[in-house]
Amino acid sequence: MTTLKVGLIGVGRLGRMYGQYLARRVPGVALAAVADRKPGVAEAFAGEFGVPRWYADHQGLLSDREIDAVVIVTSTSTHKEVVLDAAKSGKAIFCEKPISLTLGDAHEMISVVRDKGVFFQMAFQRRFDAGYLAAKRRLEAGDIGDPVMFTSISRDPYPPPLEFCDPRVSGGLIADMGVHDFDAARMYMGDVKRVYAIGGTLAYPEMKSVGDIDNAVIDLVFQNGAVGVVQLSRNAVYGYDIRGEIWGTKGSIQIGYYRQTPILMFTSAGVTHDAVPYFMERFENAYLAQIQDFAEHLQKGLSPSITGEDALAALRISLAANRSMSEGRPVDVEELEA
Amino acid sequence: MTTLKVGLIGVGRLGRMYGQYLARRVPGVALAAVADRKPGVAEAFAGEFGVPRWYADHQGLLSDREIDAVVIVTSTSTHKEVVLDAAKSGKAIFCEKPISLTLGDAHEMISVVRDKGVFFQMAFQRRFDAGYLAAKRRLEAGDIGDPVMFTSISRDPYPPPLEFCDPRVSGGLIADMGVHDFDAARMYMGDVKRVYAIGGTLAYPEMKSVGDIDNAVIDLVFQNGAVGVVQLSRNAVYGYDIRGEIWGTKGSIQIGYYRQTPILMFTSAGVTHDAVPYFMERFENAYLAQIQDFAEHLQKGLSPSITGEDALAALRISLAANRSMSEGRPVDVEELEA
Amino acid sequence: MTTLKVGLIGVGRLGRMYGQYLARRVPGVALAAVADRKPGVAEAFAGEFGVPRWYADHQGLLSDREIDAVVIVTSTSTHKEVVLDAAKSGKAIFCEKPISLTLGDAHEMISVVRDKGVFFQMAFQRRFDAGYLAAKRRLEAGDIGDPVMFTSISRDPYPPPLEFCDPRVSGGLIADMGVHDFDAARMYMGDVKRVYAIGGTLAYPEMKSVGDIDNAVIDLVFQNGAVGVVQLSRNAVYGYDIRGEIWGTKGSIQIGYYRQTPILMFTSAGVTHDAVPYFMERFENAYLAQIQDFAEHLQKGLSPSITGEDALAALRISLAANRSMSEGRPVDVEELEA
Amino acid sequence: MTTLKVGLIGVGRLGRMYGQYLARRVPGVALAAVADRKPGVAEAFAGEFGVPRWYADHQGLLSDREIDAVVIVTSTSTHKEVVLDAAKSGKAIFCEKPISLTLGDAHEMISVVRDKGVFFQMAFQRRFDAGYLAAKRRLEAGDIGDPVMFTSISRDPYPPPLEFCDPRVSGGLIADMGVHDFDAARMYMGDVKRVYAIGGTLAYPEMKSVGDIDNAVIDLVFQNGAVGVVQLSRNAVYGYDIRGEIWGTKGSIQIGYYRQTPILMFTSAGVTHDAVPYFMERFENAYLAQIQDFAEHLQKGLSPSITGEDALAALRISLAANRSMSEGRPVDVEELEA
Repeated sequence: MTTLKVGLIGVGRLGRMYGQYLARRVPGVALAAVADRKPGVAEAFAGEFGVPRWYADHQGLLSDREIDAVVIVTSTSTHKEVVLDAAKSGKAIFCEKPISLTLGDAHEMISVVRDKGVFFQMAFQRRFDAGYLAAKRRLEAGDIGDPVMFTSISRDPYPPPLEFCDPRVSGGLIADMGVHDFDAARMYMGDVKRVYAIGGTLAYPEMKSVGDIDNAVIDLVFQNGAVGVVQLSRNAVYGYDIRGEIWGTKGSIQIGYYRQTPILMFTSAGVTHDAVPYFMERFENAYLAQIQDFAEHLQKGLSPSITGEDALAALRISLAANRSMSEGRPVDVEELEA
Repeated sequence: MTTLKVGLIGVGRLGRMYGQYLARRVPGVALAAVADRKPGVAEAFAGEFGVPRWYADHQGLLSDREIDAVVIVTSTSTHKEVVLDAAKSGKAIFCEKPISLTLGDAHEMISVVRDKGVFFQMAFQRRFDAGYLAAKRRLEAGDIGDPVMFTSISRDPYPPPLEFCDPRVSGGLIADMGVHDFDAARMYMGDVKRVYAIGGTLAYPEMKSVGDIDNAVIDLVFQNGAVGVVQLSRNAVYGYDIRGEIWGTKGSIQIGYYRQTPILMFTSAGVTHDAVPYFMERFENAYLAQIQDFAEHLQKGLSPSITGEDALAALRISLAANRSMSEGRPVDVEELEA
Repeated sequence: MTTLKVGLIGVGRLGRMYGQYLARRVPGVALAAVADRKPGVAEAFAGEFGVPRWYADHQGLLSDREIDAVVIVTSTSTHKEVVLDAAKSGKAIFCEKPISLTLGDAHEMISVVRDKGVFFQMAFQRRFDAGYLAAKRRLEAGDIGDPVMFTSISRDPYPPPLEFCDPRVSGGLIADMGVHDFDAARMYMGDVKRVYAIGGTLAYPEMKSVGDIDNAVIDLVFQNGAVGVVQLSRNAVYGYDIRGEIWGTKGSIQIGYYRQTPILMFTSAGVTHDAVPYFMERFENAYLAQIQDFAEHLQKGLSPSITGEDALAALRISLAANRSMSEGRPVDVEELEA
Repeated sequence: MTTLKVGLIGVGRLGRMYGQYLARRVPGVALAAVADRKPGVAEAFAGEFGVPRWYADHQGLLSDREIDAVVIVTSTSTHKEVVLDAAKSGKAIFCEKPISLTLGDAHEMISVVRDKGVFFQMAFQRRFDAGYLAAKRRLEAGDIGDPVMFTSISRDPYPPPLEFCDPRVSGGLIADMGVHDFDAARMYMGDVKRVYAIGGTLAYPEMKSVGDIDNAVIDLVFQNGAVGVVQLSRNAVYGYDIRGEIWGTKGSIQIGYYRQTPILMFTSAGVTHDAVPYFMERFENAYLAQIQDFAEHLQKGLSPSITGEDALAALRISLAANRSMSEGRPVDVEELEA
């Protein structure tokens, strides 16, 4: 198999992580170029990790004839432009979640990559976590019978910077965080028919200034009649708390863990352990597996593991939940036009 | 302090348990009489536990001049009649949950016991569980800051007999099981403003014949803006799974445990332990503490720990949730007239 | 079955507990009398729990013709005298552990109760704990194959009063605490052939003044070649930490638990729960089951569940361990004459 | 800093792992050559990971002038020869544990590397595990007061091939496995003064044919009077079970974990999770950190993190334990001449 030459677009926190993986830990891949708009960032990364070329914008990188595929880790609001440009340049595409801020953008992206015939894989790293994967295997093996209820909890240890909370930038709590839970819900339970959302700005009053909330509950009714709950929160001051639970007719599966470092302290204060600090500690291996999966599927001519349609479906649930919250009523997902 | 002479009305499964506690483990109390409509039941219990007198119906017991107080553990549909009769006979009253099947009945019961001036304490044994109590202490001590989200999970290991599932008998899943969760919600978070419920008959199709469901999710919006979720299920085939969780601005409290017997098995099948079999194993000590609390509050002239109004409020949430589910919309609790 | 009339001798901390159980929670038993040398103690207990008669010494109680059986909870150094007197008066006997401070005393006690033909049951409450019992069932069911190694850990949250630490009073750390572990070892693994002990006064230097130690490790070689370790400590400042572990050819069993109250705190300090405070919290149900077992075995004409020979064997291991520590060499248990 | 050119000697299971790390994940390092006596092994590895040169024996690699340092992962019986040759060629040395099978060899190795002035770092990966590291930090911070007892448990899921069990090849159970526990003991508690060992061939009778045992308990008395226990076993059929525990005057630290994959199954069989499969899953990150530490210490001119003297001390405890077991008596470590 020939080496896949990959270009990385966006070298922020997540981008750096993907970049390191691409440079060293993805079999059959060479990180051939990096691009970032922020002056000096791409160059510095290229120097640190021995990447042959760097660019100040995605257009530069896309015009690099040696690049076979791009990994897009720019801010969500730029996804459409970058993906469309990449599709037009004929590069295979890996794009971080969420696919876009609007359904219209997502549809256009899916349509263009289809027209151009490029490989297009979306990112939802939980699908590559050992726990989420094992749960899927056990569910499919029938170990808990038919699934009838799904619970997904995502809690951040602290809120993002206020400017990021602005729903016009991040999509807001439900689209930014909840999209992971909605994707997991679809993976285990199938498509969602109706949502109902409640929540509020309960822990960080300053979030109201940008119109975001910090806690939410989103109920799900699946197409098959099963039910689900997603609970989101920005105030898990103890750490990053990600949990899933599938209740079936013959048993249940719980996904997640609480303790990061394997020590347990016994003192006069009781029994204590640490918590999971943040998403890098929780999902480091999943992110690696996800980018390896992209390279492998692309090189072997397999279908993408996570499609644009998957990303669109999760986004649509998010937007339906946002509408539910603002209108105070249950919302059928199909109310939101494709 | 003189000995409190208590009469037990209803000697079913829960009644037997209360009876044994009253006979032996409640300081300052003598179990003076028992009554049950089922022929032979009261007599047999009286013989087994040395109870001086027994009656074939509650009227007989209530006419017993020596009885100071009654413990009512009959089926919910009879609560009104027995409580009214007890109030009219001037006995102090302890009544198992739920208070009644309708708000009208509950109001009448509260009104009559108030008019008659008798001591009236309702039952919600979770309030006396070491875990729920400790959570309350920690919350009130400010250990997790202000509470912003509450989760309560109640799962039974198997469904009740079909005839009991009939909502006209038990109130159905939400009123029968969920009332515990609604009471816990009020204890930690204050009153509920609005509910939304989804669910279905997902595990036991035969329940449809009596009109009951086996799984439900009920969202709660509290008066203070905080939010909550109650998840109910009859198909926790592994055991009795009762959990609570309070998310605050400075931390969280989880209530509950999974393992009943303190052994852990390590074999080629992995690491295994048992689960909590059922409510007696989970709440044995709480039931004892609850009936001791009743006797203590009555004897010391204190206010009842759990009032008829508490029971009414929990019932009202249940009925609002039922209405929400049947009408497919959020329901304000105050829609349901007092 | 006629009611068994029991007399309680010794109303200290453990004695009070047994007394309450005998008064209320042992089917078929009436607590007919109590005795304690400390002025006022027996009388006060009798008043509190409605015990018909009380005595200032064990002789008085033993001369009570109505008493069928005695429960002896006096200090170890008095066990011989009380047991011999009880045997001579023809009463059935339950005696707290350890049987005595010397093998000679134990032999004499066993011999006299045998000659007098009285029922004689010793106490090792771990045998009646749900965890230890379940471990035994699983072991006997072959779930871990053949047992090859046994570990037993006993840790107290704080040291006893210095005067009690005096080995002439309590037998010292190894005989006082370790005897429970040695009995558990015999229950699961069979008889002990050789011991080796190390340890020291490592946490509480003041214990040296009375010649006791606060930490010890005792190795066991069983008759069948399997091996074991007992670890004892007085400085588990977090609580009462009792654990057992059986390693077999096909798996392992761990016995014990760490958390007493079923809540888990998540704060910026990490994840925290409480520990088991002390032996009453850990073994309350086991003590009750143990005294119920005594009454049941006596009334049904069964053999005692724990014999004087069992108690003697555990004491002998303790004394061999003490000799090992003082002489710095492995000691065969049979070195210590019967 | 210039790139460190490393040669890997020995490409077995552990060698492959180090090789992959050196090729990709050790900053400032280039894996310049590999050597293995087994025909084709070095060549295949070099091809797979793009290593420039490969050799059929360590002498060839050592004569490679471009190599700055070697990582030695050959069988223990060859350590002396390879280390001496490497020292003579002036290469910096990283050597897997145990240092050698005899104290004489270890002394000679230490002496020669000292004479030649080469950097020499030994391997004990537990020292780089997040749990063992955190325990050390907490201990040094005084969080549990003064340590008074140490427990270390090492259990393999299955025995090594019989030919490897031969104590002349591997050193036997105590030297091969226990050396990790003895090193951990020294890290937390200081040097060991006396040992006593028991054990036997209890699970795999066929091991007797090569003179090895499969279960052992080794007591430790430290120079400072504290005590310790090491428990070793080859029959943890459920997985790889590595635990440490430090008891202090103000608390305790437990090191280790049981569950590998973060899911918990609740079925009619109870609550189940998997165990840690084997050492690669348990210590993958520790091995990486260890080899990174070697490169960093070498490049920065720091002292080796783990010295030959550390390795010698752990070996000496192992050999003292072997002598104790064969002679049935406690053995002072200093009995074994340096």
